[in-house]
Amino acid sequence: MHKLIAVTPEEFRNDYGIDARVLHEVTEIDLKNRRVLVRSLAEKKEWWEAYDHLMIATGAVPVRPALPGADARGIYGLHSLESGIRVRTAVDTENPKKAVVIGGGYIGLEMAEALIMRGLDVSLVEQAGEVMNTLDPDMGALVSDALLKVGVKLFRGETFEGAEVSDGCVRAVVTNNRTIPADIVILGLGVRPNTELAGRAGIALGVRKAVKVNDRMQTETPGVWAAGDCAESFHLVSRRPVHIALGTIANKQGRVAGINLGGGYATFPGVLGTAVSKICDVEVARTGLQEKEIHAIGLEYVIGRIESSTRASYYPHAGKITVKALAEKGSGRLLGAQIVGVEGAAKRIDIFATALHAGFTVETMINLDLSYAPPYSNVWDPVHLAARRAAAALAGRS
Amino acid sequence: MHKLIAVTPEEFRNDYGIDARVLHEVTEIDLKNRRVLVRSLAEKKEWWEAYDHLMIATGAVPVRPALPGADARGIYGLHSLESGIRVRTAVDTENPKKAVVIGGGYIGLEMAEALIMRGLDVSLVEQAGEVMNTLDPDMGALVSDALLKVGVKLFRGETFEGAEVSDGCVRAVVTNNRTIPADIVILGLGVRPNTELAGRAGIALGVRKAVKVNDRMQTETPGVWAAGDCAESFHLVSRRPVHIALGTIANKQGRVAGINLGGGYATFPGVLGTAVSKICDVEVARTGLQEKEIHAIGLEYVIGRIESSTRASYYPHAGKITVKALAEKGSGRLLGAQIVGVEGAAKRIDIFATALHAGFTVETMINLDLSYAPPYSNVWDPVHLAARRAAAALAGRS
Repeated sequence: MHKLIAVTPEEFRNDYGIDARVLHEVTEIDLKNRRVLVRSLAEKKEWWEAYDHLMIATGAVPVRPALPGADARGIYGLHSLESGIRVRTAVDTENPKKAVVIGGGYIGLEMAEALIMRGLDVSLVEQAGEVMNTLDPDMGALVSDALLKVGVKLFRGETFEGAEVSDGCVRAVVTNNRTIPADIVILGLGVRPNTELAGRAGIALGVRKAVKVNDRMQTETPGVWAAGDCAESFHLVSRRPVHIALGTIANKQGRVAGINLGGGYATFPGVLGTAVSKICDVEVARTGLQEKEIHAIGLEYVIGRIESSTRASYYPHAGKITVKALAEKGSGRLLGAQIVGVEGAAKRIDIFATALHAGFTVETMINLDLSYAPPYSNVWDPVHLAARRAAAALAGRS
Repeated sequence: MHKLIAVTPEEFRNDYGIDARVLHEVTEIDLKNRRVLVRSLAEKKEWWEAYDHLMIATGAVPVRPALPGADARGIYGLHSLESGIRVRTAVDTENPKKAVVIGGGYIGLEMAEALIMRGLDVSLVEQAGEVMNTLDPDMGALVSDALLKVGVKLFRGETFEGAEVSDGCVRAVVTNNRTIPADIVILGLGVRPNTELAGRAGIALGVRKAVKVNDRMQTETPGVWAAGDCAESFHLVSRRPVHIALGTIANKQGRVAGINLGGGYATFPGVLGTAVSKICDVEVARTGLQEKEIHAIGLEYVIGRIESSTRASYYPHAGKITVKALAEKGSGRLLGAQIVGVEGAAKRIDIFATALHAGFTVETMINLDLSYAPPYSNVWDPVHLAARRAAAALAGRS
C-alpha cells in the first residue's frame, strides 16, 4: 500500500516544507475575509484560518443513487485507496461468491476483471447498449464480447433500480428487467465534482458543477484557484468546457496551478479525454470526440475503421487490433479515435492524441513517420491504415 | 516464407492487372528515346522496351568492403529474402559454432540476437564506440550492455580489416586489434542506393548517390520517377535531403509515386528517420536528429534525459525505460528523441515522431493529453518526464 501513496504528509513537510494537514476538514469558505473554517477531526476543534491564496482541490465523489437498499452493507463505491482496501478485505474475509458490478465504465470493468480473477461469479449491469460508453457502440461491443469471453454475465440496456436487503446486508440487485443475487455489489457509476463547499461560498461553478477556471487555473474569484477532478477543463476539439475526471488531467492542472501560485507563469491548454484501460487480455483506448459528441456540437464526420494486426502478420503473437478514426467532413481534420485490441494495441492512442493537439488532418497522418519493426507492427501501422480509410471516405471512395 | 511475400507476380497480374516480370533485368535506360534495354534471365534474350513513364525502384545494395577474404564462403550479406534463407540454411546444415557479426546497426543486432538464440557463440565487431550509432553514444551504451548481458562478445572501436580463409571458406575475422575465429560471418555494414543504372543514364543523383526527387517523387528527368531505398528523402527537422533506407519510407514514397503516376495528386512531405528494434528483451527506438546531426547543421540544443518505468512503478512487470529528448536552445523546439527500455518502452517513439511532424516545443509536449493506466505508465508518461527535463534545461534549471 505504501507504494500507492505518491507523497506522505511527512515527505511534504520534510522535503517540500509544506504543512499538509490530513484529518482536517474545511467546512466553510469566507471569500470576503479571505479565511476558511477548519475542523480538526482528531481533536474535535474548529477555527478560522486566513489565506492569501486559496487552492480548491476537493476532487470528485462517486455517484451514489438514492435508490431502495443502495446504502446496504456489501455495496461499495470506489473512489479512494481506503475504499479499495475495504472491498479487498470484504473479498478476503467474507468469502462472497456472487458479485454484481453496476456500470460498465473504467472502474466497473477493472473491478469486474479483478473479481473474475479472484474466482467470483460476476454479473455486470450497464444502462447503455454496450459497456464503455466513452467509445462508440460498435467499438464498445468489442469490449462487451471480451467480457463475455472471460465469463462475466452481461446485462446491457438494463437500469439499476435498487437492492434487496436482509439483516442490513445486500442479497440481490434489482434492475428494470430482473433480480440478480449478490453477495457483494460494486458501484461504478462515475463521479461528480466535489464542489458543494466551493459553490456554497459563491465561487463560480460551470459545466456539471465543476469549478470554473481559466487557463492558469484561476477561478472567477481573485486569489482562489482550483485544479483536478473538482475543476473544469477546456476540450481541445469541441472547444467547450468539459468535466473529465482523470488523474492525467488532475496532475497537469495541479502542476500549472502550482507554478502560478508560486509566482511563475504557466497555462494549461486543455484536454482530449484520452484514456486507456486493460480488461483481462483486451486493451481499450480512446481520445478526442466520439460520434455522439460530434453530433452534439453539430459537426459532420466520416469514419475510418480498420482491423489489422498488433505485430507484423507473420510475427509470433500477432493479434487483432481494431482502430476507428473520426474525421471532419470537408476539412479532413481528425476529431477522435478509438482502439480495441490485444496486448500492444492501446498505447497507439497517444499518436492520435498528439495528432489532435496538432490539429492534423487524416491525410497528414498517412505520412507520419512512425516506427516499424516486425515485433511492433506491419510497415503501415494500424494508425496509418485507419487514417487512409478515413481519407478514402472523405474522397468518397469508402 | 509465403507469408513474407507481400504480393506475388500472379497476384499482381490477377488482382491489379500489373505485368510484374521477375527474372528480368534492365541493363540500360535510353532517356532520349524513352526506352529501356531488358534482358530475360531465363531465356537469355535482350530487347528494347518503350515507356511513357519510367519508375526507378531499384532499392539499395548492402555495403560489401573490398577487403582480403571478404568474398569467401561463409560470409553473408543480408538484403533480400533469399539472402536470409541462405544464412538460415547454412546454420541448419553446416552446424557453425562461432559466428562473427560485422556492424552494430539494426541488421547486425537482429542477426546477433537470432544467432545467440540458435545457440551459437556470437562476436560483434563495431567500428564506433557503441553499437547502434543512430543513437547518441550514451543511449547506444545501454544497447551494448544489453548485448553483453545476453552473451554477445562485443568488440567496440575495432575496424574490420579482412578475413582469414582456407579452402575458400572463412576461418576468422581480422580487426585492427585481434583475430576472431569464425565459422560464419554476417556483414551488417549498411546499404547504399542501387543507382548505378540510373546514374549511367544521366538521371540526376543527390545525397549518397540516391536519385534526386521532388515531393511528388519526380526525378529531374521528365517522365521518370523514383521511390524507395534508391531515392532521396527530405528530412523534416534538418530540412535537407537525406538517404534513409527504411521500409516505412519506401512504402510511403511508393504510394505517393503510384498516385501521381496513376494521374492523381499526392506529395510526400518528408521523413524523420524514425526506427525501432528489439534485441532480446531490450527495445530501442529513435526519431529525428541525434546529437552529432544537430552539431552538423550548426544548431544548439539542450538534453532532457530521464529514467522511468514502463508501467506504474507498483504494477507487476514494470521495468526500466530511458528516454532522451533533444530540444533546440532558445525556441525549445523538439529536435529528436531516443528510447531504450524493456517490453512496452519503444513504441512511445511515435509520440515524439508525431510531435516532430507538428513542430512542437518540449514545453507544449508537457501538456500532451496522453493515455494513462497502471499497466501502461505512471500518470506522467516517460515522454512527459523527458519533455519536462528538457524544458527545465532550457530554463537553466537542469
